[in-house]
Amino acid sequence: MQVLHKSRYEPLTARALPGRLASLKSMGEHLGPATSWRVREVGDGNLNLVFIVESDSGSLVIKQALPYARVVGESWPMSLDRTFFEYHALTRLLARDPGRLPALIHFDEEQAYLVMEHLHPHIILRKALTGNIRLPHLGEHLGRYLGRTLFRGSDLSMNTAERKSDLALFSRNVELAGITEDLFFTDPFMTHPRNQHTPGLEDYARAAREDMDLKLAARSLKAKFCNCAETLLHGDLHTGSIMVTETDSRVIDAEFAVYGPMGFDIGSLLGNFWLAFFAQKGHHPDDVARDRGGWILEVIETIWESFFDEFSALWRRERTGILGGREFFEDAQRPLGSEIALQQLLKQIWQDTLGFAGIEMHRRILGLAHAAELETIANVEERAACERKSLMMGRVLAANRAALPDIRSVNRMAASMNSTDLLK
Amino acid sequence: MQVLHKSRYEPLTARALPGRLASLKSMGEHLGPATSWRVREVGDGNLNLVFIVESDSGSLVIKQALPYARVVGESWPMSLDRTFFEYHALTRLLARDPGRLPALIHFDEEQAYLVMEHLHPHIILRKALTGNIRLPHLGEHLGRYLGRTLFRGSDLSMNTAERKSDLALFSRNVELAGITEDLFFTDPFMTHPRNQHTPGLEDYARAAREDMDLKLAARSLKAKFCNCAETLLHGDLHTGSIMVTETDSRVIDAEFAVYGPMGFDIGSLLGNFWLAFFAQKGHHPDDVARDRGGWILEVIETIWESFFDEFSALWRRERTGILGGREFFEDAQRPLGSEIALQQLLKQIWQDTLGFAGIEMHRRILGLAHAAELETIANVEERAACERKSLMMGRVLAANRAALPDIRSVNRMAASMNSTDLLK
Repeated sequence: MQVLHKSRYEPLTARALPGRLASLKSMGEHLGPATSWRVREVGDGNLNLVFIVESDSGSLVIKQALPYARVVGESWPMSLDRTFFEYHALTRLLARDPGRLPALIHFDEEQAYLVMEHLHPHIILRKALTGNIRLPHLGEHLGRYLGRTLFRGSDLSMNTAERKSDLALFSRNVELAGITEDLFFTDPFMTHPRNQHTPGLEDYARAAREDMDLKLAARSLKAKFCNCAETLLHGDLHTGSIMVTETDSRVIDAEFAVYGPMGFDIGSLLGNFWLAFFAQKGHHPDDVARDRGGWILEVIETIWESFFDEFSALWRRERTGILGGREFFEDAQRPLGSEIALQQLLKQIWQDTLGFAGIEMHRRILGLAHAAELETIANVEERAACERKSLMMGRVLAANRAALPDIRSVNRMAASMNSTDLLK
Repeated sequence: MQVLHKSRYEPLTARALPGRLASLKSMGEHLGPATSWRVREVGDGNLNLVFIVESDSGSLVIKQALPYARVVGESWPMSLDRTFFEYHALTRLLARDPGRLPALIHFDEEQAYLVMEHLHPHIILRKALTGNIRLPHLGEHLGRYLGRTLFRGSDLSMNTAERKSDLALFSRNVELAGITEDLFFTDPFMTHPRNQHTPGLEDYARAAREDMDLKLAARSLKAKFCNCAETLLHGDLHTGSIMVTETDSRVIDAEFAVYGPMGFDIGSLLGNFWLAFFAQKGHHPDDVARDRGGWILEVIETIWESFFDEFSALWRRERTGILGGREFFEDAQRPLGSEIALQQLLKQIWQDTLGFAGIEMHRRILGLAHAAELETIANVEERAACERKSLMMGRVLAANRAALPDIRSVNRMAASMNSTDLLK
């Protein structure tokens, strides 16, 4: 186990940082001598300290794990290992889709911090989705990222030895996997002190907790998350884990990485986009909301279709792993067999995607960690109305995932749901 | 990693054994002083040396890994780690179904051997199935074993930390998992120098290798085996891995243990029973074959039903793990939800079981390692006829697994297939 005694671990402060990191050669190369560094703490995450270190030559980000969950305070202790898992996830994801995550400069296991590329002028995608910015490349960037990382982290690409040793490594990310198991799949569908929701949603919260079909869906999707080690996931891919400019999109915060079903990353992400879609009426006048909502649905469609195309292209070109299967099809004059197998797999990923999206939409409204797109709607009644529609949509996605044929139909359903009046 | 330099590893011989093991306290307690031990080598397996050590006070078995696959010779090198995995599998399986595997006396990691209870007068089940013995408790023993080990090794029973650390441990059993991936799911459905089959089966072998639906089934079942870490499997549960008397049944040889889908152990086992069923006509006159065959089908039915009953009972009583889900159902006045979830899971296990049985029936006839029940049929034409029926049945199980409703229907299909004439 990599779990060492972290006796010499000490949280960084803006003041102490230059002294403590001065000897790092890679920092010096980027920033020059430590005496010239300007440090500010910017962390607003739940689990970590984040610093930006600037000099006249450039800037870097330092992310350090805290031994407790920051959002709750020192009462929720957490191990420092998650930096180890983020480091290993980042190196793998970067190799699978180069340039789509921040470059890695340095990893200190004992002090549990990473030094990374400082993304600027990037902003968190959640902010962009409630503002007035359009991001013309976003859907394609994210769809391709999903296609590449999910394919290349799977048995379709990796050989037995490499794959099983990676599975062994990431199956030690127990603490964060346990958090996902609880916060995604369990808490939102029962009464739990960690849960919170907007006033006015009492009936909907109660209904979700009495809804047997929804709970059966949550149970079977939880089983899929726990048991189906299909690929290395980001594990927490939402609109707060993505930083954007008009031309660039980056995926950050991979500490929840585990082996799991491909649909989990896609579904988490699309679920957050649908939440952002239903949030538009809370942020904008009707006509702007309609326009922004239409754009968000377009992005959703582009993400799925770019994923589908990229995954299919890699299937045809890079199927070299345990589950490559060329010997059955291409090499045996049965090339269509491989196309059928691809469609069978994509159909399964599609249904899983919808299911996980539906779960994500519940946990962000009824569970512990909410989505800024909805939380920032100041008018509580407006917010509750947006959330009711999100819950109804999420319920359909989770419980009826086998009945929904394609992304356009699902988006049309979302648009139709959004035009109904659920203020009460 | 537990992979140490095995520089001091040395294969045991019957002659050297007493001297080398004399200092083991546990051996002395069972057998008295080493000077009184009588040793004979009895190994007829593929990968190991096996010795029986007897004295006037009792007897024990010593099983030692060889650094190559014995069946092929020193040209197929294999690591000695498999004894480590067998040791860990044995301790877990014994805890989950006490008494159904040989008791463990001692494990020596460096020398890669286990000292175990000597099962006698037990014989290998394969032998019993071609002979004239009836085993009135066999089906119930094996069904209960499957229910207990598959349930208790899963997320239904285990908590997150315990479960993921076990997954990490067994995912290092790479070499043997790789053998299963190749020998079960790949080789039999393509042309490969390791394959062998009875003369007269050429057309059937070619047909299997050109059969797109069968290959699609093999591919998707291989994906399930590789990706679906549902429980700790025995991993090689066939009628040669079971030792029996009229009143006792024991499971041996757990070195292939990996996390995988529950249906894999059940399907491997039932596939071998169906092979034994189709082999009866090659061993006995018609009326005896009919009688023996009827008994084998009864055992198959009892195995499935005992598994079903035991698994269901544990589901109701022992659901304490990550996927327990009592909070959704029993604890929330929705007890029927848990019964529906049970039926959903059992239906999935049933279909997986049939699929894996169909694959097993192919690999034992077209692949490298065959089944003694069929191999011992001296008349080659008779044997080929039995094997043709087995392949046709196996094809239905693998490719049509979603269409077969219950164990009685499947057995009726086997009986009807068996009464057709396929000598040519």
